[in-house]
Amino acid sequence: MCQLLGMNCNVPTDIVFSFTGFALRGGRTDTHHDGWGIAFFEDAGVRLFVDHQAAVASPIAELIKNYPIKSKNVIAHIRKATQGVVALENCHPFVRELWGRYWVFAHNGDLKSFDPLLDGAFRPVGTTDSERAFCWLLQELRRRFGDTRPELAELRAALQPLVAHIASHGTFNLMLSDGSALFAHCSTSLHYIVRQFPFLTAKLSDEDLSVDFSQVTTPNDRVAVIVTQPLTDNETWTAFAPGELKLFVDGEPQ
Amino acid sequence: MCQLLGMNCNVPTDIVFSFTGFALRGGRTDTHHDGWGIAFFEDAGVRLFVDHQAAVASPIAELIKNYPIKSKNVIAHIRKATQGVVALENCHPFVRELWGRYWVFAHNGDLKSFDPLLDGAFRPVGTTDSERAFCWLLQELRRRFGDTRPELAELRAALQPLVAHIASHGTFNLMLSDGSALFAHCSTSLHYIVRQFPFLTAKLSDEDLSVDFSQVTTPNDRVAVIVTQPLTDNETWTAFAPGELKLFVDGEPQ
Repeated sequence: MCQLLGMNCNVPTDIVFSFTGFALRGGRTDTHHDGWGIAFFEDAGVRLFVDHQAAVASPIAELIKNYPIKSKNVIAHIRKATQGVVALENCHPFVRELWGRYWVFAHNGDLKSFDPLLDGAFRPVGTTDSERAFCWLLQELRRRFGDTRPELAELRAALQPLVAHIASHGTFNLMLSDGSALFAHCSTSLHYIVRQFPFLTAKLSDEDLSVDFSQVTTPNDRVAVIVTQPLTDNETWTAFAPGELKLFVDGEPQ
Repeated sequence: MCQLLGMNCNVPTDIVFSFTGFALRGGRTDTHHDGWGIAFFEDAGVRLFVDHQAAVASPIAELIKNYPIKSKNVIAHIRKATQGVVALENCHPFVRELWGRYWVFAHNGDLKSFDPLLDGAFRPVGTTDSERAFCWLLQELRRRFGDTRPELAELRAALQPLVAHIASHGTFNLMLSDGSALFAHCSTSLHYIVRQFPFLTAKLSDEDLSVDFSQVTTPNDRVAVIVTQPLTDNETWTAFAPGELKLFVDGEPQ
């Protein structure tokens, strides 16, 4: 099983604090050492960093911990290989373009016998069940909506049965974003928190590190953090219900 | 105008030496300071680094100069904006998936009135003429070959008239790779060198830095470097002819 981390905000925010705790799970405080990746949206553009080294040993993870890239939508993933060899092309997040937007996808779980018909518009490059599921999702969305990107509410309504269908093949915790919003679906384990005024001090569970968010935010900032297992031990995280698909916009669950 | 750098090798090779000289052109020895990017293939996987900061000022460029990522196919680009604002989504190289492979593309030049009909399979995310040309190229290749990737020779034959058509709209120096080979087309300026046994010492034109390649290679290594303007001043670079499309495989022009 892998671990997922997502962030959705109303203003571009850096993820250094959360990523620092999360990255430790890639080989130190947990056993997810078969690669990792993180994607940051900056408007419509994406920066994607993937590495097949464990996150704790990766110079690229080190860069991200020290270089505060600001983004309104971030998806990160630490991999414990269940299907597909340890190789760069099997590292999440995956990126494809649809409707003139980049879509970023990461998955935690394991799908059994999920081998849908892919018509060629989106094809996996690697060998994971996850990338196959992503390609199928985009194919079905394009089939449904043609060449025009629908409104978020419509998109969510269309995603729900598609995601439920995939989840019938196994565990399918996922995050998906086109830079304007973040979708998160829980099969087994996903938690979120919304940080907003008045901001408090948060303390990482995985390392002796605290941040007083009131010092680094303005009263209007709102940041949702979504993660497999809570990252801090002095805040209240909300667990997703199994089967729940949430849409986060401007740091708020809709 | 921008600058392009490509590398195609028969064994995974690091590009630290060439990138060091090339990156200096991004804001120090030349005026290409509107962002930069580099893509490394590792088998079918791609690492893409893009930044809208000048390459000389970018912490990510610093990482690449110090972290020898080994690759058989690399494409790098330093941008001097002619069309499209300075934004992450306008930084080259661009990546799309076709035939279950990632395709990486970068362009130097400026296209006038190139506004082809795009059927929706590949759509630009940013606003550059370059990304539009890339999307059209992939669309036409898919239209021609359907869902099956052709052999390289067939692909080259199909690319030649497509590239010539785009070049009729302006300057179209380009590099394109799916990780198995590298295509390079010259409108105005492109040079290449093949380094192979016996390896010699090369000295960068843009900085006082030399590498004795005989110390870091084996006799079987072969490395083609393709670039807008020669990077070293003690080696003989071959200029492309205008309109020439070359295919590099395993470090050799075909």
